[in-house]
Amino acid sequence: MPRYKLLIAYDGTSYGGWQSQPNSICIQDLLEKALTILTRQKSEVIGSGRTDAGVHALGQVAHFTTDEPIDTGRVLFSLNALLPKEIRALDLSQAPDTFHARFDATGKIYHYRIHLDPVLDPFKRKYALHVQQKINLDALKEAAKLFTGTRDFSSFANNQTKGSAAKDPVRTLRKLDVIEEEGGVRLEFEGTGFLYKMVRNITGTLLEVAEGKRAPEDISSILAAKDRSKAGKAAFPHGLFLVKVFYP
Amino acid sequence: MPRYKLLIAYDGTSYGGWQSQPNSICIQDLLEKALTILTRQKSEVIGSGRTDAGVHALGQVAHFTTDEPIDTGRVLFSLNALLPKEIRALDLSQAPDTFHARFDATGKIYHYRIHLDPVLDPFKRKYALHVQQKINLDALKEAAKLFTGTRDFSSFANNQTKGSAAKDPVRTLRKLDVIEEEGGVRLEFEGTGFLYKMVRNITGTLLEVAEGKRAPEDISSILAAKDRSKAGKAAFPHGLFLVKVFYP
Repeated sequence: MPRYKLLIAYDGTSYGGWQSQPNSICIQDLLEKALTILTRQKSEVIGSGRTDAGVHALGQVAHFTTDEPIDTGRVLFSLNALLPKEIRALDLSQAPDTFHARFDATGKIYHYRIHLDPVLDPFKRKYALHVQQKINLDALKEAAKLFTGTRDFSSFANNQTKGSAAKDPVRTLRKLDVIEEEGGVRLEFEGTGFLYKMVRNITGTLLEVAEGKRAPEDISSILAAKDRSKAGKAAFPHGLFLVKVFYP
Repeated sequence: MPRYKLLIAYDGTSYGGWQSQPNSICIQDLLEKALTILTRQKSEVIGSGRTDAGVHALGQVAHFTTDEPIDTGRVLFSLNALLPKEIRALDLSQAPDTFHARFDATGKIYHYRIHLDPVLDPFKRKYALHVQQKINLDALKEAAKLFTGTRDFSSFANNQTKGSAAKDPVRTLRKLDVIEEEGGVRLEFEGTGFLYKMVRNITGTLLEVAEGKRAPEDISSILAAKDRSKAGKAAFPHGLFLVKVFYP
């Protein structure tokens, strides 16, 4: 059966996240509903991973299968006509029959935006975390360096309330760069995979360092503890963007 | 009586524009309500001019008067605590007793953003007009040049349904630049003043040129006609930003 790979961007502000949840509208549901109409068969859409409620995506990847081949150009156009404007299908292409958006992913890039102007920019309010007080950028950069490499990230992983919790908490964080941009900073994460809430938990802990509540060198002992309670709170979802998913 | 000058930014998406209107929430109303609470007296806030429903501002200016001097730092902070996050007071300072945000304004800058990617970027959907078809950028630039200078802009002015319609339709447009930016173009208008809906009417007409529905050289005859019906439709409000108001 032909299989298709979908590239998707979404403004997650008003949605309950990627995955089907009771009592909220989810991105996956809307894609499945639209594709079910367009392909005239019940469509299951598998994403590269979940994004939480309020998290955005510039390059989420998903796959689905159909009984008959589809005209990708036509379905892409019609999909965007059916979807709300907060969700856009950027590309649709045929993939190998064995392609799996989640299991084949070899890495991901996430960005977390922090807005540092004393007064909130109203155009950033849904797309960056606003931190009003002065922060120590040098301490933030120093602490960020301590996360990269292949490590046990248990201290920065939440248990998923349902579904498969990760059995192996070891991940390779290839990059955690602190990029200064107009009005704030952007944390750029690139890794082989991410545990549940890992990016937001690392960001929240880094912010506590930047605000002087923890020392940069505390990061090593927090990692060593392998205990979620030792790290900081998860940063709010609205600063987080899934930017890219890598495949071989 | 002490008079104060307020610098304001707002995301106009959910509001009925600057000015008090029946059946909609307006920026001016919200500022007046908040200032009435903070100054403990009925406050009237006069803006540099109206912005329509859905239009945004990066640098709107307004003034208000109080019986007693106020602590500007404290009122600025409290004002932002009372206002919704879509509206931010960026600066508050004492002004001369005769300062008038509307009558003293010597010029304004407006930007109109046009998003040209074939697929809508969901993060631009409220802050730029999405034009899906290919446009002729050279024709757009050529036509834009014909608007600058001191001219009778009657063909590009709507009658205001209430309040004072401009008696003199002559304005000086100092600049109308077409700036290419990532994913689209930005029209930058700078002038001594703007008639009602003038920026949106010029933009809508320029888009008809860019889409090949009119020739660039038609602009001169449209201007000469001094007849609103000869020009194109007003472009949608959500691409428009009031960027700056000039004072002597």
